Amino acid sequence: MKILAIREVTVPIGAAMSNAAIAFDSMTASALAIVTDRVQNGMPVTGYAFDSIGRYGKGALLRERFIPRLLAASPDSLLDDNGLIDPEACWRAAMANEKDGGHGERPGAIGLLDAALWDARAKLESKPLWRCLADHYPDCATGASPKISLYGSCGHYRPGRTSDVLDALAAEVKRAGDAGYPLVKIKLGGNNIADDAARVEAASRALGGRIAVDANGRLDASIADAWLDRMTQLDVAWVEEPASALDYAALGRYASQARLPIATGENLFSFDDARNLLRYGGLQKERDRVQVDVLLAYGVPEYVRILREYRAAGWAHSAFVPHAGHLFAAHLVAAFGLGMHEAAPDASLPYGGLWDGTAVRDGRTSIPSHEGAGYEAKKNLYAILQPLSSPN
Amino acid sequence: MKILAIREVTVPIGAAMSNAAIAFDSMTASALAIVTDRVQNGMPVTGYAFDSIGRYGKGALLRERFIPRLLAASPDSLLDDNGLIDPEACWRAAMANEKDGGHGERPGAIGLLDAALWDARAKLESKPLWRCLADHYPDCATGASPKISLYGSCGHYRPGRTSDVLDALAAEVKRAGDAGYPLVKIKLGGNNIADDAARVEAASRALGGRIAVDANGRLDASIADAWLDRMTQLDVAWVEEPASALDYAALGRYASQARLPIATGENLFSFDDARNLLRYGGLQKERDRVQVDVLLAYGVPEYVRILREYRAAGWAHSAFVPHAGHLFAAHLVAAFGLGMHEAAPDASLPYGGLWDGTAVRDGRTSIPSHEGAGYEAKKNLYAILQPLSSPN
Repeated sequence: MKILAIREVTVPIGAAMSNAAIAFDSMTASALAIVTDRVQNGMPVTGYAFDSIGRYGKGALLRERFIPRLLAASPDSLLDDNGLIDPEACWRAAMANEKDGGHGERPGAIGLLDAALWDARAKLESKPLWRCLADHYPDCATGASPKISLYGSCGHYRPGRTSDVLDALAAEVKRAGDAGYPLVKIKLGGNNIADDAARVEAASRALGGRIAVDANGRLDASIADAWLDRMTQLDVAWVEEPASALDYAALGRYASQARLPIATGENLFSFDDARNLLRYGGLQKERDRVQVDVLLAYGVPEYVRILREYRAAGWAHSAFVPHAGHLFAAHLVAAFGLGMHEAAPDASLPYGGLWDGTAVRDGRTSIPSHEGAGYEAKKNLYAILQPLSSPN
Repeated sequence: MKILAIREVTVPIGAAMSNAAIAFDSMTASALAIVTDRVQNGMPVTGYAFDSIGRYGKGALLRERFIPRLLAASPDSLLDDNGLIDPEACWRAAMANEKDGGHGERPGAIGLLDAALWDARAKLESKPLWRCLADHYPDCATGASPKISLYGSCGHYRPGRTSDVLDALAAEVKRAGDAGYPLVKIKLGGNNIADDAARVEAASRALGGRIAVDANGRLDASIADAWLDRMTQLDVAWVEEPASALDYAALGRYASQARLPIATGENLFSFDDARNLLRYGGLQKERDRVQVDVLLAYGVPEYVRILREYRAAGWAHSAFVPHAGHLFAAHLVAAFGLGMHEAAPDASLPYGGLWDGTAVRDGRTSIPSHEGAGYEAKKNLYAILQPLSSPN
């Protein structure tokens, strides 16, 4: 079998919202299809992937380097002993002649390719993606199950007067609670304790439950002690990204001071960086959470290396809570028994919600049994992906 | 004044050579021009930049994100109080709504823009680039001088039988010595002590001087002790990148074992990463060298932050030896009194040699007095850049 075509389209997903670090007005994301010559159920087997959100689309790099390398490789060199597409062999072909270091956009481009290849691979095996991944990496899959825990992620900053903003925040959090999420994460500014506390209180009241908070790397060091104390009083579920992504020393200070869980890692895009977080970040394995995003960080082979490295240091898979809430991450949580899936509860967004008709109850759901990742079962996402699937 | 156009072309610079990490057959580089509406000497002032080598061209990202942002900014917001283009204001406009972390391709795209902006800025001030930079950052410029030290960089792996290869290596190193470089750096494999020692001996004999060696992050840990001992016996000038770029723990082990200078940093592309090298890499400030490449690492504003951070930790500017040997780096060495400039001695390459007619004697040269970086004075490079300069 062989790959017939690889197609990418960059989709504008801009929204009038922001977090403590960036605005999302001009945000984009990549949709990708890898079309094969193998026909199943009367259709060419096609692997799909849709981007994680927040670092812009990856189309340019894909077209410039990674798609041409994959298409130039001898087709047989990309197959395993069973004659099926081998995502790890494809990974090596796409990464040929790439230097070490510099884990920025490249890991996201490779991650997208890898995700589409695993979607195709699972379809070739007629398995849901999580089962395919679990079977491929048995050492990581002792907790494999389609039943996963989820939390809701929302509460970005949007234009408006403060009182309106708090009302809108509360309404958004309440919608998430009503949709089945007893734990919801919101964005904070990290530079004003009273403002941030008001947001947590409004959100907590609306939810009737615990709130996790995200400072997006922008907690002001000059108020950090008092800010962390206030978050502890407010009983937040965790503080996310108090320090800038690569400032392990600042993170370590916060982690040692804090009397509440710290979560970070969504802006670390490689095994190398995740290992440095482990070595220098001062995280506590019984308490803290690692949020590396598989799609932004070279895909499954790299994620498995990271899991193994942390496991060797005594960490449980339950400490891993992948960033971003794309459907691919939900399968990863199921395959490897990770702690939780992050979900953007608004299913009207192509990157929000889950598969159409999937019920979330008390922060739990069960992944439906579609072959592959099941992008076909989320209509507004498949409307973007399907046009990429023509074999010609 | 305002920017009329920003143009990029991706140039194939493939060559049948390799180092311990990658092959260069499909290597590309970006050429960039920023055309302004200010006329001097009857011509629109145009800032040029040409890529560093080894991480591929940056055209796709430039067109996707960074050029559109700069062109969308209000022209006045990009000027300083004197009405001249302000490279730091342009830097902030290009980096708007970019998250922390992930320093990979983005720093190279921003670095190219920044380099072209400084070329334009120096021309607007009718100064050589090094003088313009020194005047702009006086705290970094106490050692400013057009007279700089250089070393030659060559000795990549090329196809052929071993004896031929050693002969070709010796001939290449001898050409560098004859061209005025008493210190030459060559590539080693890092996985076979006898092979690597033979290369150093052949090169050293041909040069009649000291050889620096580059393992490109691939020194085999299982032979590292003996390999470093052998390099010490051979009296190499320094060992470059013994460890993978982000493995500070491995680097620290080598740095503490070694009885010879260690150099690294060409694959660290940000202040964050350079600071982690300082914190965790175990380098010795009196002995070791930092090789961050200004073009690959967000340009001058980021490089200045790095210099200041290291200076605060007691490092001298002479410990900084920028990677790659592009003309922009030579001006940086002159402006900030850095230790040495890396030159690819083969002037027939657009990224090799210096300005046409520039003499190198005993590893020293003086930067000619052209306005800006002087790309116009290197014919084979200007042949690539000049076509980008049309105002329409």
